[in-house]
Amino acid sequence: MSETTRHPFLEGLSKHRGSPATILVIFGASGDLTARKLIPAVFNLGLDNLLPTEFRLVGFGRKPVENGEFRKSAREALEEFSRRPLDEQLWRNLEKRFCYHAGSYDDPKAFAELAKLIAGLQKEADREMQLVFYISTPPNVFETIIENLGSSGLAAHTVGGKGGAKVIIEKPFGKDLDSARRLNRVIARNFREDQVYRIDHYLGKETVQNLLVARFANAIFEPVWNRQYVDCVQITVAEEVGVGSRGGYYDQSGALRDMIQNHTMQLLSLIAMEPPVSLSPESIRDEKVKVLKGVRPLNLSADESGDVVRARYAEGLVKGRRVPGYMQEENIPADSATETYAAMRLEINNWRWQGVPFYLRSGKRMARRVSEIAIQFKQPPGNLFSNSKQFDLAPNTLVIQVQPDEGMTLLANSKIPGLETRTQPVKMHFRYATTFGSNTPEAYERLILDAMVGDSTLFIRGDETEASWKLITPILEDWRECGERGLVDYAAGSWGPLEAERLLWQRNHVWRRPGV
Amino acid sequence: MSETTRHPFLEGLSKHRGSPATILVIFGASGDLTARKLIPAVFNLGLDNLLPTEFRLVGFGRKPVENGEFRKSAREALEEFSRRPLDEQLWRNLEKRFCYHAGSYDDPKAFAELAKLIAGLQKEADREMQLVFYISTPPNVFETIIENLGSSGLAAHTVGGKGGAKVIIEKPFGKDLDSARRLNRVIARNFREDQVYRIDHYLGKETVQNLLVARFANAIFEPVWNRQYVDCVQITVAEEVGVGSRGGYYDQSGALRDMIQNHTMQLLSLIAMEPPVSLSPESIRDEKVKVLKGVRPLNLSADESGDVVRARYAEGLVKGRRVPGYMQEENIPADSATETYAAMRLEINNWRWQGVPFYLRSGKRMARRVSEIAIQFKQPPGNLFSNSKQFDLAPNTLVIQVQPDEGMTLLANSKIPGLETRTQPVKMHFRYATTFGSNTPEAYERLILDAMVGDSTLFIRGDETEASWKLITPILEDWRECGERGLVDYAAGSWGPLEAERLLWQRNHVWRRPGV
Repeated sequence: MSETTRHPFLEGLSKHRGSPATILVIFGASGDLTARKLIPAVFNLGLDNLLPTEFRLVGFGRKPVENGEFRKSAREALEEFSRRPLDEQLWRNLEKRFCYHAGSYDDPKAFAELAKLIAGLQKEADREMQLVFYISTPPNVFETIIENLGSSGLAAHTVGGKGGAKVIIEKPFGKDLDSARRLNRVIARNFREDQVYRIDHYLGKETVQNLLVARFANAIFEPVWNRQYVDCVQITVAEEVGVGSRGGYYDQSGALRDMIQNHTMQLLSLIAMEPPVSLSPESIRDEKVKVLKGVRPLNLSADESGDVVRARYAEGLVKGRRVPGYMQEENIPADSATETYAAMRLEINNWRWQGVPFYLRSGKRMARRVSEIAIQFKQPPGNLFSNSKQFDLAPNTLVIQVQPDEGMTLLANSKIPGLETRTQPVKMHFRYATTFGSNTPEAYERLILDAMVGDSTLFIRGDETEASWKLITPILEDWRECGERGLVDYAAGSWGPLEAERLLWQRNHVWRRPGV
Repeated sequence: MSETTRHPFLEGLSKHRGSPATILVIFGASGDLTARKLIPAVFNLGLDNLLPTEFRLVGFGRKPVENGEFRKSAREALEEFSRRPLDEQLWRNLEKRFCYHAGSYDDPKAFAELAKLIAGLQKEADREMQLVFYISTPPNVFETIIENLGSSGLAAHTVGGKGGAKVIIEKPFGKDLDSARRLNRVIARNFREDQVYRIDHYLGKETVQNLLVARFANAIFEPVWNRQYVDCVQITVAEEVGVGSRGGYYDQSGALRDMIQNHTMQLLSLIAMEPPVSLSPESIRDEKVKVLKGVRPLNLSADESGDVVRARYAEGLVKGRRVPGYMQEENIPADSATETYAAMRLEINNWRWQGVPFYLRSGKRMARRVSEIAIQFKQPPGNLFSNSKQFDLAPNTLVIQVQPDEGMTLLANSKIPGLETRTQPVKMHFRYATTFGSNTPEAYERLILDAMVGDSTLFIRGDETEASWKLITPILEDWRECGERGLVDYAAGSWGPLEAERLLWQRNHVWRRPGV
């Protein structure tokens, strides 16, 4: 019972072979993400012996920073954020491969100098190395950087005459359909699609990757994974935190853009997709995009028939502590109509799913931080056990806990021991931490490794971003027109507004209390 | 999520209403079963307030025993065998309802006196009381007792002109098809079928009762519960003990009669039956007997094509302790050809199961005491994950642990956390003891209560016993003809003989290691 299977798309990869010689250039090197996630990811890949033997990291930023200072701040980032303790020997080996390059993102000269620096690094290593550009800047300079990578010739950099550089693009990918399309066009002028790795870090999470395994490496789930057996699907991405000091940024975005358009839609695609022909990146992404294209147009009316609910948090209690409402947070304009919570009901118009409601919700300042997908199955037919309405059976539910407390739970009805036959739902469950221990790689480790190796499965394809924006943009436009009309309040620390219950009540469902 | 459902067949029963006034007469009152199981069961029913307000217990046995002495030994039995401690107040209330009646089972006078005693008890209580006869004697006096219950008029005893006495009959119910038929005929001359409660105490076990709940109160199992998804079913009833001092009795019986014909066949019926129309006793037993009738005739040849394997234990190690082989046990005749282990492969010829092998095995002196049912599902189609033979996926398996460590486990494939996609079977499980605590009623409590209440669901119907013997008898006859030929050895403390593996290898299966 200890058989293990390697993922075909990683067939070539092993600790012994490693990924090809790589120069990783991070744009936005002095930013928060670099310190919290990217530097620790690189270091942890090193700990697992998964960095290429020839590896260089170039931090690119506007601020002038000495190499020594860059290395020092990288070390501090590791000490603060790495999931495993600093290994001095690895660090000494690693830090000399780190350097910094200051320049303005819109200055062609800075890119020409970067090209020279890269040439020098290759000369020093005495070999050609693949280039991986990680764009981790604010989104307003994405296009400028991409254009400059193109015009400087860096995008076309080959190894042995093959390939071309890779570019990893952080979120947000556009802020509506138009801007996403424009960004895709800029990318397409400078890179082939197979050079592009659009990040949604949710895809790097173990439990999200496990969705494919759970669905397609098990024979018993797929037969009931359809409209005949599934009653509804509930996807929750809840945060406990408020906007904090990021109010100025957040007010431009909102829950729909910030979470639903990307993370929640990705979970939806993976849970609802048809089995792919193979596990190749293109096969998987072909199926994912079909899900998004199959979503029936939403009813946007603000009345009882509408499929979408938006809300923002009012003052409330989080873990017994009083917290301010959204409008009282720093840097929120007095005329803000930004939602911190969005919920929607959608249907997928295909043979598998027609008629099954998918309920999506995401919000800040909710009762607790939890992301989960719950597949709720229909009642068994007949009335063998539920002979009276008072004693309906609980529906079978398969819950995939994405975070925290990663795992999978099946709620099944069982007999309560005793001399009468009474039933009670019991949990059959499996916890990652119990089964595998808790030292799980972070999403960014997987994603940076995959980009170096050239596996784009866990990245968003251009047409996926557009399909998702196509769904979301009409809602955004409608909300912009309505202003504050239709925007309701919910108490911070609650599970969202009462109005969101209505979406489910209308179909005889109720929101799950996540974690149950 | 705390909905509970009452079993329709217990609709009338509650602590408030209780079962009707009852006189329970135990034949074989000085026997082992009475002390170990029946007296403790009655006491524990009392603790749960489930005895009728008017209750009398009459011990019937050959030995002359004073009432006081009978009560004293009942108290000793409780102290030794009750799952819950003795409650003095309850005991004082209970013991005065216990009396003893000595007599020979073949003496009509003894039964006439019993009738007088019963009339006296009713007079004392100033009401009519139902009679429940529990026949817990050696099987050679079953028929005599039943005939005498008939001829004495006790079988026809009514309450308010209705009913008739109930009779509970312990195992073994016959030793082959002929004797079972004869016993059924004797019963039918003296009782209506609805007065008869044939015991298989396995049916009183919580996990066995839960089979119906698990199958029919959950919507997700039934869709995959058939030949399209199930690869094979394995039923194991393993004992760790040897025959001990019961060699003389056991040598007349053997594993096939002692375990397979009853317990294992009952598990088979419950796991393979069609959904019943209702949970009424007759509906359930109608479906159970259809399973047994649908079993394809077995191939009895002793060569490689045969469906049956028998074996007896040789000397071996059990938990590091050397134990003797069966032939070295007390009271085993030198020419014994009795099996202590039997395994068989069978198929059920119906729409649901055709082509799915059911593997049954039971033995003494096996590696450990465990009873379980494992439903092993087919591989998922395609080769998404199992692209190389070396890395086949583990099959999904649903394991119902009957004893010990009662529970349910689903083996599902999951991604092993880490930077490659490798899969590993993980356990999603639920344990009775964890979920409900460990103070579960014993099988005999449930069965005695059900008989008093008049619910025969958990008892074997006459046609079921015959259907089961019809399957088993040809094997017994074949073995009698063959003598020792075809009887192989297995080491005590092992999982049985190598020959039993052959049954599975031929269909590309392997026996599960129970508990995994």
